[in-house]
Amino acid sequence: MIRSTFKTLSAKAASQLDQELMSTGAFSIDQLMELAGLAVAQAVYKQYPPTSTSSSSSSQKVLVLVGPGNNGGDGLVAARHLKLWGGYDPILYYPKKSSKNQLYTNLLTQLVDLEVPEISTVDEVKHLLSVSNNVKLIIDALFGFSFKPPIREPFLELITYLSENHTTIVPIVSIDIPSGWDVDNGPGEIDINPTMLISLTAPKPCAAKFIESSSPDKSHYLGGRFINQKIAKKYDIEDLIQKYKDDQLIVKL
Amino acid sequence: MIRSTFKTLSAKAASQLDQELMSTGAFSIDQLMELAGLAVAQAVYKQYPPTSTSSSSSSQKVLVLVGPGNNGGDGLVAARHLKLWGGYDPILYYPKKSSKNQLYTNLLTQLVDLEVPEISTVDEVKHLLSVSNNVKLIIDALFGFSFKPPIREPFLELITYLSENHTTIVPIVSIDIPSGWDVDNGPGEIDINPTMLISLTAPKPCAAKFIESSSPDKSHYLGGRFINQKIAKKYDIEDLIQKYKDDQLIVKL
Repeated sequence: MIRSTFKTLSAKAASQLDQELMSTGAFSIDQLMELAGLAVAQAVYKQYPPTSTSSSSSSQKVLVLVGPGNNGGDGLVAARHLKLWGGYDPILYYPKKSSKNQLYTNLLTQLVDLEVPEISTVDEVKHLLSVSNNVKLIIDALFGFSFKPPIREPFLELITYLSENHTTIVPIVSIDIPSGWDVDNGPGEIDINPTMLISLTAPKPCAAKFIESSSPDKSHYLGGRFINQKIAKKYDIEDLIQKYKDDQLIVKL
Repeated sequence: MIRSTFKTLSAKAASQLDQELMSTGAFSIDQLMELAGLAVAQAVYKQYPPTSTSSSSSSQKVLVLVGPGNNGGDGLVAARHLKLWGGYDPILYYPKKSSKNQLYTNLLTQLVDLEVPEISTVDEVKHLLSVSNNVKLIIDALFGFSFKPPIREPFLELITYLSENHTTIVPIVSIDIPSGWDVDNGPGEIDINPTMLISLTAPKPCAAKFIESSSPDKSHYLGGRFINQKIAKKYDIEDLIQKYKDDQLIVKL
C-alpha cells in the first residue's frame, strides 16, 4: 500500500544535483554535510526522543554505523549533534576511515573530543546488540545513493547480520538509502529492513519500496533543506520542498 | 535593571575559543558559520515571525547590513535561510566585499542564486528605510567581537544614521555585538540601540548594557550550539550551554 506519492531523484540526478550545488551553487561540502547531518539528528530526535536529556546513565545508546563516504559523513555530523543535545550516547562503528579526506578526519576528531566511543569489529557490534536493553537505536550511515554492489567486507558481514536479525534488534534509521538496497530497485536478498528512512534533498526511487512496506511503526522524513526554487524546478521536485513548514529543517512525509 | 545574570566572554577569550574550535577542535569556518547563521535566522523567525510564508508580495522585507568579516558572513548565512524558508525578502547592503575570501564570495553567490537583491550605497539604505512600511526588520551583521574603533566609512555614516533614527525606523537585530559598541563597555556616543541581540557561543561583556536597557520589546537570544562540555568548562560557560532545550539551536535568555 503506497502511503503517498512523491517525486524521486535517480542516483544520476542526485549526483548531478550535488555537483551543481557544489560548483555553480558555490556550496562547500562542509556546509552541506553539516546541514544534512543536523537534519538527520533532528529527525531522530523527533521520532525517537530521548527518555532523559541529562547526561546520566539513562542516556540512550545509539549505534552509528559509518561508511567510508558522504553518507558516513552525514552520520558523523548527526552523532555529534545528538551527543551535544544530551540524552543520547552515540557509539561509532567506523571501520574504513579515509585518512586522505580531511573533512572526515575532522568530523571524527569532533566526536573524539565529545568522548564518543568507538568499536572496531563486527563481533563487537554483534555483542553490543545482543546485550539486552543496551542499544536503543541504530543509525545506518553506511552507504548512500552512489553505492554500487557488491558489498565488501566488513560491511557484508555486518549488513547480513542486521538483515538476519532486524526483527529482534532495535530500530534502524537509514540515511538517504537503506544500506545494501539498490538505489532504484530497493532490497535484494539482503534487507536490513529499516524502521525509519531520512531522505536527503529528495527521496530516491527505492524509497517507494520503503513506503510500500509501511506499517504504523515506520516513518519517512525529508531533510536537507538547502536547494532553491530554481534547482527544485530543474529537477522537478518543487512539490517536495514546499512540504517544509516554517523554519523547520525536516518534515515527516 | 538587570534581568538575569550570566557569564560573558571577553573579546580575547571569544577569539581564543574560536581559534581553539578551528585548530584542536577541528571545526571548519564553513561549518561554524553555517551553524551560527542558521541560529541567527531561527532566532529572527521566533521573535519576528513572517506574516505569511508564501513568497507573495506580503513577504517581509529584511535589510541585512553585512560587514567585511565573520559577523557579515553570519549575516549572509542567516539571509539565505530566511529567504529559503519563505515569508522574508532579504535585501543586502554589503559595501566592502573581500574578494580574497572564497567563503564570503560563495555565501554571496548562494544569495544571488536566490535572487536576493543588493543595494550599494548608504543613500539607498536611507531611502529604503524612509519608505513607509517597506522594511520590517534590519539585521545588523556589520561588526563582531573583534571590531576595533574607529568606525570607517561607509559604515560610520550608516551607523550614525541608524543611531540618530533608531526610534523612528524598524527593529534592529544585532548579531553578537551591536555594531559600533565597544565589546567590553557597550555604546559610546553613537548607539544603534538594537531591539534584539543574538549572542553567539556566549554573551560578550557589553551584552550587560543591552540587558540594562531592557524593555518589554527587547529580546536577547543565545545561539551557536556547538561547543562541548570540556571547552565550556575551560571558558567557564557551562551554565550557559545548559540553557538550551531539546534539539533547539537557540534559546531566549
